[in-house]
Amino acid sequence: MHDVVSAFVVSQGEELLTGLTMDTNAHFLCEVLTRAGLRVLGARTAGDDRDAIAATLVDAARTADVVLCTGGLGPTEDDLTAESVVEAFGGELELNDLAWDQVKARYARIGRTMSPANRKQALLPVGCDVLENLMGTAPGFAVNTSSTRMYFLPGVPREMKEMIGRLVLDDIATRFDLVAPLRHTFRVMGRGESQLQEQLGSLGTRFPGVQLGFRTKMPENHVKLVAAPGEANWESAKAWVREELGDNCFTEDPDEELAAVVGRMLVDRGERVALAESCTGGWVAHLFVSEPGSSRWLERGWVTYSNESKTEEVGVPEGVIAENGAVSEEVARAMAEGCRAHAPVDWGVGITGVAGPTGGSPDKPVGTVWIAIAGPSGTHARKLRLGRDRTANRRFSAFIAVEMLRRQILRLNAG
Amino acid sequence: MHDVVSAFVVSQGEELLTGLTMDTNAHFLCEVLTRAGLRVLGARTAGDDRDAIAATLVDAARTADVVLCTGGLGPTEDDLTAESVVEAFGGELELNDLAWDQVKARYARIGRTMSPANRKQALLPVGCDVLENLMGTAPGFAVNTSSTRMYFLPGVPREMKEMIGRLVLDDIATRFDLVAPLRHTFRVMGRGESQLQEQLGSLGTRFPGVQLGFRTKMPENHVKLVAAPGEANWESAKAWVREELGDNCFTEDPDEELAAVVGRMLVDRGERVALAESCTGGWVAHLFVSEPGSSRWLERGWVTYSNESKTEEVGVPEGVIAENGAVSEEVARAMAEGCRAHAPVDWGVGITGVAGPTGGSPDKPVGTVWIAIAGPSGTHARKLRLGRDRTANRRFSAFIAVEMLRRQILRLNAG
Repeated sequence: MHDVVSAFVVSQGEELLTGLTMDTNAHFLCEVLTRAGLRVLGARTAGDDRDAIAATLVDAARTADVVLCTGGLGPTEDDLTAESVVEAFGGELELNDLAWDQVKARYARIGRTMSPANRKQALLPVGCDVLENLMGTAPGFAVNTSSTRMYFLPGVPREMKEMIGRLVLDDIATRFDLVAPLRHTFRVMGRGESQLQEQLGSLGTRFPGVQLGFRTKMPENHVKLVAAPGEANWESAKAWVREELGDNCFTEDPDEELAAVVGRMLVDRGERVALAESCTGGWVAHLFVSEPGSSRWLERGWVTYSNESKTEEVGVPEGVIAENGAVSEEVARAMAEGCRAHAPVDWGVGITGVAGPTGGSPDKPVGTVWIAIAGPSGTHARKLRLGRDRTANRRFSAFIAVEMLRRQILRLNAG
Repeated sequence: MHDVVSAFVVSQGEELLTGLTMDTNAHFLCEVLTRAGLRVLGARTAGDDRDAIAATLVDAARTADVVLCTGGLGPTEDDLTAESVVEAFGGELELNDLAWDQVKARYARIGRTMSPANRKQALLPVGCDVLENLMGTAPGFAVNTSSTRMYFLPGVPREMKEMIGRLVLDDIATRFDLVAPLRHTFRVMGRGESQLQEQLGSLGTRFPGVQLGFRTKMPENHVKLVAAPGEANWESAKAWVREELGDNCFTEDPDEELAAVVGRMLVDRGERVALAESCTGGWVAHLFVSEPGSSRWLERGWVTYSNESKTEEVGVPEGVIAENGAVSEEVARAMAEGCRAHAPVDWGVGITGVAGPTGGSPDKPVGTVWIAIAGPSGTHARKLRLGRDRTANRRFSAFIAVEMLRRQILRLNAG
């Protein structure tokens, strides 16, 4: 059994405490440290107050083996990190030659002139290790206290993340005997968290040593397994979950989106899709085009927002709209089939609904959405009854449409 | 001068420290407390460890006048809040009759049967004030320590937010002599944060007592003014900033999106727009349709992803594509003008570019995007040179297109 290496995360900046900025850095660091095998014991946000920052750093160093602190490295007066470090742990600041060269080189590279304030960014605690910032002007640094390795990184997320990957994780791994836990993710459509809980809740007793976790990313759910390195039950636990989830799991790659999975399935079949979207207003197109290489499977899309455009673009007969209303199974089917008729594609998607917050009627209340998928073996339509939130309704409808397309392709693949 | 009422925010849950869940509650509470006139001195995340939670609560109560703690009120063993409160401040837990009635009533209302574990949710510190949860099963509660009013709320964001609005803010306001600060927001396109800093940085010396803040929401920037209630310089500071920003400020309503402003301008003119999007893949449509009532100004859109669709849908001549390439000023112009020719609209938007991460060429590298706006007085086109990030390129292009449309309408309005 390895000793657990503990960590503490400090975020610094008055804008975090006034709610002007959301602290995404702490979340990122908690995730990345946990993945690397550390146990995060706590996280703390401090404002632009030197005494408060110093007290927070002392407390963090007392708590954990590794401390990561973001923010407060800039050139202005409210950037107080280096001063707080010497207040907390003693020592003095000096102009660090290496850091100063890095700041100057960075300014030269981006062709900007420096102000006298930039010199402050190279005033670092005597004896610290400089961490070069390749994407911004503020160098980071690391110090050792009697018990703790402390890293100080810029608050700009992309600068911080790049430095974590290039410099910090390796440094932690070489200083501590880290072994990352086993982790596996199943991404699921079509089952809610409580259904998954009911279906998979016995995992811990079936496979002792394997932990089960859930994360909802509406309308998706992620099932997560975690175990200590070398856990004997690991493979059988994964196989059991895989069997239980069946087709509801669309990928076991934690970073693969539903739209990417569908794109891959279409490319494998050599087929393409066109989209006729009304209430989703291009959201499905947006999901597809978010995936690199989407031109291989997305041929085109229409945002047929007006009734005229439904008729003119994808050939929904005026009479069908007049008879059934724009939000109807008939119109959704005609839109999906019109995609296939009006573009050189194998698959068509039609979506029409009342996104809200107003515009509903007694028989078609806000949240009523019809989705149709037209494909090589016919057209399949489904009605959704959603809530009153416009954005949630549109998001949900777009994802369900992509999922319905996946189901239809799966059915064809199964023969 | 009022005494400042201080606050401290505690978030509880192991899933926050392992990075499984992002803590949006702390951000929400920091913002809402600051708006209400409190000064948030710090925020702390604790895991599922009773001693650590108790120590965090003791420290929070020592620091601030008001403490808000979310999470840990559920029925399971890792829900430790009530136990931690008595460990931290003494006293005992008892079955709280009021809370127990609320739990039972909630289960009856949603028609679910209770498990024995639910009784735990009504085991609260003797003498606490119960805070009814109308959207979930876990009641909240509040206690007074010698110096501090402490609120304990569920971790589920919608439950917590509803209780903050209905119960907590009023309770704080009646216990403390709160006066909310003056706040004003200018939402800006077309100027970066450093440009704004340079232009507006003298505000503090021009108008003592008024503070300036920035928030970047790429590619937008928000300029924020804050002052104490009754500040004499308030109106003149706002007027100065308004004058400086001119047309770069598209709204002074902090909640109004750029797409809503453009929609309002179009409705005022009785005009509509159609969209031909390639690399943005429906993102502009998505921005427009996100606004309720968008059917009044968005007539239709095309995601003309393939070359054929550019020709077939909006009439871009094949020769123009062959001669200039799909990513060119000529094609963008033809797409924008094709919108006006192929739909009953006054305005057309054409966007074509290399979103990346691959697909560039030496003369059209990744990040090259052409945007054209066709309107009643001609067509205006602009080239963007963006970076290598596909999502950032697409987001940026979509917002710039909406902003270009706003500029063209402004120009017409100015006559």
